[in-house]
Amino acid sequence: MSELNINGDRLNNRLAELSRIGRHPDGGMNRLAFTKADRDGRDYVESCMRRLGMEISIDPAGNLFGVLPGILDGGAVMAGSHTDTVASGGRFDGALGVLAALEVAEVMIENEIQPERSYIVSSFVNEEGVRYMPDMMGSLYHRGAITIEELRNARGIDGSRLGDELDLNEMHGQGDIASSRPTAFVELHIEQGPVLVDSNLLIGAVSGVQGLSWTTVTVQGSANHAGTTPMDRRQDAGRVAARLVSAIYEDLSNITGQRITIGSMKFEPGLINVIPGRTTFTVDLRNPDESELCKAESSLTRILEDTCETGSCPIGYDRIARVAPVEFSPRIVDLIRESALRRGLPMDTLVSGAGHDAQILATVYETAMIFIPSAGGVSHSKEEYSTPEAIEAGANVLLDTVRSLTTTG
Amino acid sequence: MSELNINGDRLNNRLAELSRIGRHPDGGMNRLAFTKADRDGRDYVESCMRRLGMEISIDPAGNLFGVLPGILDGGAVMAGSHTDTVASGGRFDGALGVLAALEVAEVMIENEIQPERSYIVSSFVNEEGVRYMPDMMGSLYHRGAITIEELRNARGIDGSRLGDELDLNEMHGQGDIASSRPTAFVELHIEQGPVLVDSNLLIGAVSGVQGLSWTTVTVQGSANHAGTTPMDRRQDAGRVAARLVSAIYEDLSNITGQRITIGSMKFEPGLINVIPGRTTFTVDLRNPDESELCKAESSLTRILEDTCETGSCPIGYDRIARVAPVEFSPRIVDLIRESALRRGLPMDTLVSGAGHDAQILATVYETAMIFIPSAGGVSHSKEEYSTPEAIEAGANVLLDTVRSLTTTG
Repeated sequence: MSELNINGDRLNNRLAELSRIGRHPDGGMNRLAFTKADRDGRDYVESCMRRLGMEISIDPAGNLFGVLPGILDGGAVMAGSHTDTVASGGRFDGALGVLAALEVAEVMIENEIQPERSYIVSSFVNEEGVRYMPDMMGSLYHRGAITIEELRNARGIDGSRLGDELDLNEMHGQGDIASSRPTAFVELHIEQGPVLVDSNLLIGAVSGVQGLSWTTVTVQGSANHAGTTPMDRRQDAGRVAARLVSAIYEDLSNITGQRITIGSMKFEPGLINVIPGRTTFTVDLRNPDESELCKAESSLTRILEDTCETGSCPIGYDRIARVAPVEFSPRIVDLIRESALRRGLPMDTLVSGAGHDAQILATVYETAMIFIPSAGGVSHSKEEYSTPEAIEAGANVLLDTVRSLTTTG
Repeated sequence: MSELNINGDRLNNRLAELSRIGRHPDGGMNRLAFTKADRDGRDYVESCMRRLGMEISIDPAGNLFGVLPGILDGGAVMAGSHTDTVASGGRFDGALGVLAALEVAEVMIENEIQPERSYIVSSFVNEEGVRYMPDMMGSLYHRGAITIEELRNARGIDGSRLGDELDLNEMHGQGDIASSRPTAFVELHIEQGPVLVDSNLLIGAVSGVQGLSWTTVTVQGSANHAGTTPMDRRQDAGRVAARLVSAIYEDLSNITGQRITIGSMKFEPGLINVIPGRTTFTVDLRNPDESELCKAESSLTRILEDTCETGSCPIGYDRIARVAPVEFSPRIVDLIRESALRRGLPMDTLVSGAGHDAQILATVYETAMIFIPSAGGVSHSKEEYSTPEAIEAGANVLLDTVRSLTTTG
């Protein structure tokens, strides 16, 4: 296969153009799902696809597909991401994956390469899940995990019904790409973490997505006067909660690949001179390995049960979310690694900590992701930034990977 | 001195009558300082004093005094408390001390005993400090620690100016009891803690009030994504705060008489999937002994400084309140003990954990307090309760103590 390169200036210009749609005066992006700005963002991508002569397909959920037909029937390869944002997000999260996939199509078209397998550029709706839950809704619908009725009946945080907004902004279509029978999906994305940038790497070959387990814990004590209640007659829910937090960090840190975050803590009544009568906190556990994640969950439960048995304060807990780890296609991860090595791009293999459309599609397609560094590990912020060099590197690896996947034998 | 007894039924009836003023439908008391209900409560006490023929004096702050003149000039003995309440308080906190002091006067009057030294029943305004800060304001004014201008310019939590409310409810007077030159003060109060009730005691001879030291602590971390930030690159302000809380409880528990309460804790941004970027908590330290309290403060500072030096998160702290312990008059404490022993009332010597008018007056008068048990240690609640038996016991000890103090030689 001849070596081709993407046009870095063209891609970076398109990122700049898209970032003018839904931009706050302060520079943050607001293209919340199914708003006018979201529609305008998708229109921008669609107009680029049309100029390239791609076949456009918009499904009833509003997912946009641009098809570059291959020589063979079926077995299409898809690349893409999303163009919706959080309420004050950055220019690269999602947008990069869609516009780089488009750039890959343009390079093939301008080099008059008709792929053996069809190539589909996709932009999925409502990946962020900020206005309407759940997140990754467009890819969930595409995979068949939720119906169009479920999707249209979702209620927004602003009280709106998703279906009404979809109709109002005329974002739904009748398209269907089932006939091209996709079998693979690749997503280029900013890392949204500090690993690549801290290690001076340009490419992450993403081998999977961490599993996640969320638990809320409630410690029941007895609220009493800080001055008059002797120490040995207290049921201090705050003291117990602090001990639990330390024990959880301590014990679970020994588990391979384990991430532990206790992000929320509430003391009630929360007054300087009243012994806490009740504390509530959350535990966010993530691990790329299902058996290690189960080990972490068991350790957490044991710590809570033991403290509850031996201590003065009853402890309740509730698992409020559980997502199993996702393992991406080793074949595609290898293609990504090979491309980066061939191009001399410093790289490593990573596991994604954040959620992406790719993890939803991994159950139906051969899937993997390519990460590029995020400055400071920051995302979902106007401070989100990736260098033009990293963007070009990531898009070139995507180009190589798509070309390999669309080529048989 | 002949043995006299208070009239328990009369005292308990007066407590019931006063509890009808400012009562919530649910049974809780609301006589917030300088409201109409507060004025009505004081009027009730004043009308009782008038019926007994006491000389009434109301000062510019609204403090009420009823004087039973003695044979001698000067060296008056005062007993009392307050009749204001928190927003949803109990029937006994404050009211008991005023009405029992009144009952002592009535017993002397009906037994035609003119005391050698004048006896003054006092009811101080705004002991609770809920509507207007600081608490114990009436006794602070009486002692000369705040001026009438400072008092009148206090701003309420409802935005009102204290002076306006004082005028509106016509609570201020021109009275002055300086001519009777008081030298002693005794206050009967419910314990507001569990010590007496848990030990089946009826009387606490209160030898002093705990000192208090309040500190706010801020741990500065870095808010980051719970999924994408590796454990070894985190500045987790919540994890550090939990370790500090445990260390503070652990280390300071070895200090004699030390009470430690961490009542308030705030995680920011406080989201399940974000590493806490900042935590703020409060430390309430109390000790009856000044040198032990200083030791506790030093230990706290050392823990914070050591963790700040060795850890990844800068720690700031601020001492926001400091009150030295108060030692009551050993002579009056002995009189209280002797009375309880003579009457066969099970008793012990205690230190008060809560604040009272007596601690303010202790710097200018020979002072002590008498405690009776609070059911469940509960106060500032409609559940506040003391038995008629305990009320009678406490008032009898007050009677004996006042009689001793008003008698020379």
